[in-house]
Amino acid sequence: MKSLLDAVASGQVGVDTALAQLDAAPVDDLGFATLDQHRALRQGYPEVVFGQGKTPEQVTAICARIAEHGDGFLVTRAAPDVLDALLGAWPDVERNDLARTALLRAQAPRARGTRAVTIVTAGTSDLPVAEEAAVTLDAIGHPVLRVTDVGVAGIHRVLARRDALHEAAVVIVVAGMDGALPSVVGGLVRGPVIAVPTSVGYGAAFGGLAPLLTMLNSCAAGVVVCNIDNGFGAAIAAARILDQ
Amino acid sequence: MKSLLDAVASGQVGVDTALAQLDAAPVDDLGFATLDQHRALRQGYPEVVFGQGKTPEQVTAICARIAEHGDGFLVTRAAPDVLDALLGAWPDVERNDLARTALLRAQAPRARGTRAVTIVTAGTSDLPVAEEAAVTLDAIGHPVLRVTDVGVAGIHRVLARRDALHEAAVVIVVAGMDGALPSVVGGLVRGPVIAVPTSVGYGAAFGGLAPLLTMLNSCAAGVVVCNIDNGFGAAIAAARILDQ
Amino acid sequence: MKSLLDAVASGQVGVDTALAQLDAAPVDDLGFATLDQHRALRQGYPEVVFGQGKTPEQVTAICARIAEHGDGFLVTRAAPDVLDALLGAWPDVERNDLARTALLRAQAPRARGTRAVTIVTAGTSDLPVAEEAAVTLDAIGHPVLRVTDVGVAGIHRVLARRDALHEAAVVIVVAGMDGALPSVVGGLVRGPVIAVPTSVGYGAAFGGLAPLLTMLNSCAAGVVVCNIDNGFGAAIAAARILDQ
Amino acid sequence: MKSLLDAVASGQVGVDTALAQLDAAPVDDLGFATLDQHRALRQGYPEVVFGQGKTPEQVTAICARIAEHGDGFLVTRAAPDVLDALLGAWPDVERNDLARTALLRAQAPRARGTRAVTIVTAGTSDLPVAEEAAVTLDAIGHPVLRVTDVGVAGIHRVLARRDALHEAAVVIVVAGMDGALPSVVGGLVRGPVIAVPTSVGYGAAFGGLAPLLTMLNSCAAGVVVCNIDNGFGAAIAAARILDQ
Amino acid sequence: MKSLLDAVASGQVGVDTALAQLDAAPVDDLGFATLDQHRALRQGYPEVVFGQGKTPEQVTAICARIAEHGDGFLVTRAAPDVLDALLGAWPDVERNDLARTALLRAQAPRARGTRAVTIVTAGTSDLPVAEEAAVTLDAIGHPVLRVTDVGVAGIHRVLARRDALHEAAVVIVVAGMDGALPSVVGGLVRGPVIAVPTSVGYGAAFGGLAPLLTMLNSCAAGVVVCNIDNGFGAAIAAARILDQ
Amino acid sequence: MKSLLDAVASGQVGVDTALAQLDAAPVDDLGFATLDQHRALRQGYPEVVFGQGKTPEQVTAICARIAEHGDGFLVTRAAPDVLDALLGAWPDVERNDLARTALLRAQAPRARGTRAVTIVTAGTSDLPVAEEAAVTLDAIGHPVLRVTDVGVAGIHRVLARRDALHEAAVVIVVAGMDGALPSVVGGLVRGPVIAVPTSVGYGAAFGGLAPLLTMLNSCAAGVVVCNIDNGFGAAIAAARILDQ
Amino acid sequence: MKSLLDAVASGQVGVDTALAQLDAAPVDDLGFATLDQHRALRQGYPEVVFGQGKTPEQVTAICARIAEHGDGFLVTRAAPDVLDALLGAWPDVERNDLARTALLRAQAPRARGTRAVTIVTAGTSDLPVAEEAAVTLDAIGHPVLRVTDVGVAGIHRVLARRDALHEAAVVIVVAGMDGALPSVVGGLVRGPVIAVPTSVGYGAAFGGLAPLLTMLNSCAAGVVVCNIDNGFGAAIAAARILDQ
Amino acid sequence: MKSLLDAVASGQVGVDTALAQLDAAPVDDLGFATLDQHRALRQGYPEVVFGQGKTPEQVTAICARIAEHGDGFLVTRAAPDVLDALLGAWPDVERNDLARTALLRAQAPRARGTRAVTIVTAGTSDLPVAEEAAVTLDAIGHPVLRVTDVGVAGIHRVLARRDALHEAAVVIVVAGMDGALPSVVGGLVRGPVIAVPTSVGYGAAFGGLAPLLTMLNSCAAGVVVCNIDNGFGAAIAAARILDQ
Repeated sequence: MKSLLDAVASGQVGVDTALAQLDAAPVDDLGFATLDQHRALRQGYPEVVFGQGKTPEQVTAICARIAEHGDGFLVTRAAPDVLDALLGAWPDVERNDLARTALLRAQAPRARGTRAVTIVTAGTSDLPVAEEAAVTLDAIGHPVLRVTDVGVAGIHRVLARRDALHEAAVVIVVAGMDGALPSVVGGLVRGPVIAVPTSVGYGAAFGGLAPLLTMLNSCAAGVVVCNIDNGFGAAIAAARILDQ
Repeated sequence: MKSLLDAVASGQVGVDTALAQLDAAPVDDLGFATLDQHRALRQGYPEVVFGQGKTPEQVTAICARIAEHGDGFLVTRAAPDVLDALLGAWPDVERNDLARTALLRAQAPRARGTRAVTIVTAGTSDLPVAEEAAVTLDAIGHPVLRVTDVGVAGIHRVLARRDALHEAAVVIVVAGMDGALPSVVGGLVRGPVIAVPTSVGYGAAFGGLAPLLTMLNSCAAGVVVCNIDNGFGAAIAAARILDQ
Repeated sequence: MKSLLDAVASGQVGVDTALAQLDAAPVDDLGFATLDQHRALRQGYPEVVFGQGKTPEQVTAICARIAEHGDGFLVTRAAPDVLDALLGAWPDVERNDLARTALLRAQAPRARGTRAVTIVTAGTSDLPVAEEAAVTLDAIGHPVLRVTDVGVAGIHRVLARRDALHEAAVVIVVAGMDGALPSVVGGLVRGPVIAVPTSVGYGAAFGGLAPLLTMLNSCAAGVVVCNIDNGFGAAIAAARILDQ
Repeated sequence: MKSLLDAVASGQVGVDTALAQLDAAPVDDLGFATLDQHRALRQGYPEVVFGQGKTPEQVTAICARIAEHGDGFLVTRAAPDVLDALLGAWPDVERNDLARTALLRAQAPRARGTRAVTIVTAGTSDLPVAEEAAVTLDAIGHPVLRVTDVGVAGIHRVLARRDALHEAAVVIVVAGMDGALPSVVGGLVRGPVIAVPTSVGYGAAFGGLAPLLTMLNSCAAGVVVCNIDNGFGAAIAAARILDQ
Repeated sequence: MKSLLDAVASGQVGVDTALAQLDAAPVDDLGFATLDQHRALRQGYPEVVFGQGKTPEQVTAICARIAEHGDGFLVTRAAPDVLDALLGAWPDVERNDLARTALLRAQAPRARGTRAVTIVTAGTSDLPVAEEAAVTLDAIGHPVLRVTDVGVAGIHRVLARRDALHEAAVVIVVAGMDGALPSVVGGLVRGPVIAVPTSVGYGAAFGGLAPLLTMLNSCAAGVVVCNIDNGFGAAIAAARILDQ
Repeated sequence: MKSLLDAVASGQVGVDTALAQLDAAPVDDLGFATLDQHRALRQGYPEVVFGQGKTPEQVTAICARIAEHGDGFLVTRAAPDVLDALLGAWPDVERNDLARTALLRAQAPRARGTRAVTIVTAGTSDLPVAEEAAVTLDAIGHPVLRVTDVGVAGIHRVLARRDALHEAAVVIVVAGMDGALPSVVGGLVRGPVIAVPTSVGYGAAFGGLAPLLTMLNSCAAGVVVCNIDNGFGAAIAAARILDQ
Repeated sequence: MKSLLDAVASGQVGVDTALAQLDAAPVDDLGFATLDQHRALRQGYPEVVFGQGKTPEQVTAICARIAEHGDGFLVTRAAPDVLDALLGAWPDVERNDLARTALLRAQAPRARGTRAVTIVTAGTSDLPVAEEAAVTLDAIGHPVLRVTDVGVAGIHRVLARRDALHEAAVVIVVAGMDGALPSVVGGLVRGPVIAVPTSVGYGAAFGGLAPLLTMLNSCAAGVVVCNIDNGFGAAIAAARILDQ
Repeated sequence: MKSLLDAVASGQVGVDTALAQLDAAPVDDLGFATLDQHRALRQGYPEVVFGQGKTPEQVTAICARIAEHGDGFLVTRAAPDVLDALLGAWPDVERNDLARTALLRAQAPRARGTRAVTIVTAGTSDLPVAEEAAVTLDAIGHPVLRVTDVGVAGIHRVLARRDALHEAAVVIVVAGMDGALPSVVGGLVRGPVIAVPTSVGYGAAFGGLAPLLTMLNSCAAGVVVCNIDNGFGAAIAAARILDQ
């Protein structure tokens, strides 16, 4: 903006032109999507495409526009036909069926971080959400440690992994059912703990409402919460902490 | 019923009289309450009066009818004016303001049980509910152990009390907020675990809904759940186990 | 732990080795699941695998690791393709399509209990949940009685089965729709009553929420509640009572 | 309307006048309330004033307008200060503090009905709602039988009163907590059963939501339901049946 | 019961035999369902089988046991494969795909009633529920009038059918979306009005919760409510009124 | 109505005939639907058929009756098989798969309006709802501007389109997930803002409940809200404003 | 902004100064509130202060800052002590206890509009919300018509006032309980209809949730909805329509 | 633990003594509360006492035990009588009525951090929650910046404060009503954003549920959420980030 104002001050750019440019935000309109080519700059992360509710054609079109600029992309919540389409278009895409993601690395990726994020899961069924978080962190350059299937009903399992918790810069805890694990982890570590409820469970889990409420009411102070099944959001939250 | 049929068979009691007696259930109608003088027999416990929503006059009238037969009574959810009225009428009443109970022991109480119930609370604010359970168990003759303020955010606190958990015949776990404690306790002990959610907590605890859902979804198999703040119900559930 | 400390005291085990062993919990990591080979010891029951949300391959891999040690397993919430895979791998597996379970008995099973659990259902549609409870109890060695289709709208049906209720050590009551049956049963028997709401019913049953709330608010004191459709949990709760 | 059209046809009434009369509904505007003096005719019942959220002055003004025409009135949900004001203005008003009602009988009341409505309550705390129903039925001329405190946890209590149920033209069942009583009553009688949930109960009763859902899901076919605590509505529903 | 007691009094039946007979309720156990052959007598209606959640084999087995006694049956909530199976087994079955019902009339049906039930629907999408009510009423011998697609947004449509409303002994109003129609109908007629919410509607209808709440809060006094989509229940409620 | 009364006054129409005509509302009964041929007149819009829950046969029959009178129709929420059937019957039908609509323009359409409605969407996944609104507005003759994919997380995107907002007569804002966009738009423009929540989003969006609540609680005064996913309703609301 | 850029272009304002001014929004910080003195300009309405949750001192301080500039203010949701404080500070304040508002007219008020808003209420208890809307419209210069107590259970009452509905530029409909009135009104008028649910009603109204859902699901197309009890919001929505 | 094992290895400590010490967790039992004197060490923060639901006597007793060791304390959610009691006992207590906190600084406080936390509020009514966060951060040694009353309906207000957002190490955003502010802030800054919903708002805010859901569904990736009104939790979450 400063350069634009400089140009106005020097007479290189007229007032009307400047007004028009100020209104012309750096967006790129595909008709069905407004791409934001400067977002990478502003947010510091590669472009992410939320795949749910989009057709393979829509996702491919959006990704093509991104790849055109040499940027990489990460597609989340991708159904199998979306993953097929993306792999067909870009053979270098890294496909992860458990995480439901497709990743094309940028041609000039960021340097990798040195501090790890530990992702803890309460049960096997929580793995897809944890994996979405792990792929996302990998895509934006942060190392990941995994501590798997350490629900609180066998409390010695999580206690046995205290080292992996303590050496983490950030801990992401993924849990469905009773969602109790973040409260225990939050009491074991001093650093940031990000809790992600999952929609795993019997009837009164109500699609993840039960662990969501558990985590919001955690008796371990300072545990923060993401949306149900939102592994991607947890990864970005961790990156916001690590990248500052 | 057998004796009635014997009497019919022997001609001592006519058919019409027998029919009338079969219809005349052993209830005692006060107009606003149907007292069930045989319930003590059927359920094995002293008469309990639920005080909430009743006036001091109503509670006193019900208790008078019970005490008339030499039975004891336990009034729960008693407001201070109800407690005052009961102590005024029966100086031997044991008043507990924290538990909001009034207890008049029966003239011929049951023999005390030998196996203890351990009542565990997650935080100080859960004490009124735990105390309601403790008073109820005492009233019906079962010893009680207390493990207080051992929420899972400081997991070593509950681990330090493992002995008190293991020696219990039944464990009652009272917790508000995240309600995570029963999952940990359920993993530590092999015997029955009864979870009681409390209405203690910040906004999204929604009056106890959060710990209620947590407990229903406990990852420790076989943990059973009572209504929110229902210390009385948990005590009776424990007695159902111990008294069989 | 005592033997480890003895070894440290006698110099047989060095301090560092002891520290490492204390941290090495008796868990067995498959990557996607942390098996707990000591759980049978701690909980007293065979290993149970929750089949929902797991692929046939994942379930088979977990079961193989268990069976390797001569232990039996019980898979619950198993979809037909999971049941097919298990029967393919272990011809001795007992398959129950109504209960959605697969059971491989341990090579050295526990002695059977002598006291029966009575499982009561309100309607025919509640049978899958009741059957999951029955299979589980059978797997861990407790005899089961069944009282079927005795909903409270025909109150004589449950009254006609009072004997089967009174001789039970524990009664499990499974009901959808209004969930009223546990309140009646709870008034008829003095022993433990475990209520299981089911997701059976018309619109405002809201997937089992209606009977769940009914049971939590039961006017029969001391009735305890499991999660919606959680026949397995009810069986384990009964076993916690019987096995102490 | 026919007489108006006759008058138009005969020329006695002009078209414009007829149009105006058709628009002039038989309402009586007090500024803050539109009284409907023909409603008694249309609905067949005395005028009822819902007292909640109205000041004593508002209620008195409305009642004065009704009484002016010699009609009686029934004020429901009346706070003590409203009851005081009404008794001050009309000494013949019948005040009922339990039901929170004030009744002024019409100068020319309807003939009383001959068939009784039986009002059944599960517990003592349900009495205010039952009493509102009873007062309303009395106000519009129907006899009432009461069966009190016969909750299903002591199933013999309601069975003992089967006669009072069978002789009723309509049964109103009032219950809080688990709301199970209407399912049992609905199985015992063949006539109409109207269920009224009350806001009585512990935490997870959620202000009457629990018994409301129970009743809507009643396994006794044909049980119909009123709003929570709506004794008045149940009485009018019974009168709709009896008065046709 | 009287005849049994007479037999005991006369010595024809011994006491033990009488006790056994009193316990042997008139139920018929199929293993997965307890048929109640006396229910027809007690409730006055043909046997009804709730088809949802039952396999074609289960439904056919239950129906066979009923038909064996010459009784008719009505299967509700029947999936197409259930309807196929029933028609295959009993060619006289009347199949209604809109209502999802199968009806086999009894060999000796009840005399038909003379007073009609008017079934009113707000929109075309409410028809399946209305038709379930109509088939049920027909099955138990009551004539039905239909007033279709008269939602309140075109208020003249329902006003135009006032005659059909006034001549009804009972009015059943079926509505989804805003559920406002019963309030208008309840103000137009003096007789009983039974409201049935349907699960028809956009997002915030929440599967019928919106019209359910509307109807429970109806400003027309004395409107009573059935469960969501419960056309069967509304028909039985009407029959309870007409058959007394 | 005036003309009818004039005819009565002049003797051209007898009283009985007039009564009959007054009762004969301008409705057209198809058995399963009551068509309202005067609605176009009363509401000023072409006939709209809500396609959800109707079979292709039902929709085609309704549309045939409308088209018979030379009127156009708009079918919303049409499944692919409904769209196929309509295009088969009327080749001039304009099919829109994204909006799930079929439009047959009237033979004598209304003159087009001159003031545009701007439809703003927060994300690509909100497009189907926005498109339903756009097709509806087009069908009833109002021009539409589109501002796409301008969610508030990139606030410059919506700021860049301020002109398109300011020149609109009405702004419709369609958003899922956090539903925050209407609050920002409502602060930027002075004219009417109609907010439409969509069912797009992760777990705790609860099918559109989250953005619905956000919009109802908008801190921008005077923002009004439609039902979840109700693009059609938003368009009609805009037309109510523009057509007065 | 254009004048600022002109000044930059002409050299009158330096680039750094311009940057600073662009960042310096026209806000006025009181520490606990950021007053927006340009909002009147941007939104076109006098400054409104939301009184709920603010102390009399806070409200008075905010109003003083506004009045200083000669602007008027409208305080909504004002508790009695807030109203007292405002009247004490500004004797010209117009106090309305029913609406809970205090209005100080601006020294140079806007010209009054010529088209009226009709505010319709279903019952007397809805009046406070309707009055809040009326005071707000008056404060910003729009005439108001009132149609009171015309709930749909007496459908002739609202039909009798059709004229007042038809002559309105905008209709605001305020209703609690079943919230059915907007659906009827929406079918009677062609212009904009704004529905406001109120928290008036029995138990299952759930604080206004019932009428809120009813209105969102209105079968009258194009009815839009405000938050519960939000008379102020409805008035501003009407003004957004009238002032464009 | 290592030193204990060293002592065992060297024979200084016997095995039984070691076992006892391992079981003796560093807790301090007051009967109604289990103080955790090592928590300061483990969590790194001063002892915090949650005041809600505790009597002044209970709070004072807990604080006395803490102060005894020279530690400071922070009491949150303190009612006025609790604040009075604490100030009476310790004149150095810093009382904050808006935040409802009492702070006694430790005799040897931690060194203050150098990076600031910016706390942003949407409206004046959100201030108590923001202030609780600010007091907590101050108590544990982190500087705070405040940006007040910048709700999104006046989007320029928050844009004007971009500098204060960008220079923050962590941003805490406190908002009630629509809860939209964190989505905008999350798009403006790259660092961690912690959202706190408040219970401020009209009817359908449902005690903070509306902004809670908004924030969980934020379209700005990586925004994390605390419980409703939980300013304390947000502060601790920020400290977890800053103190690692």
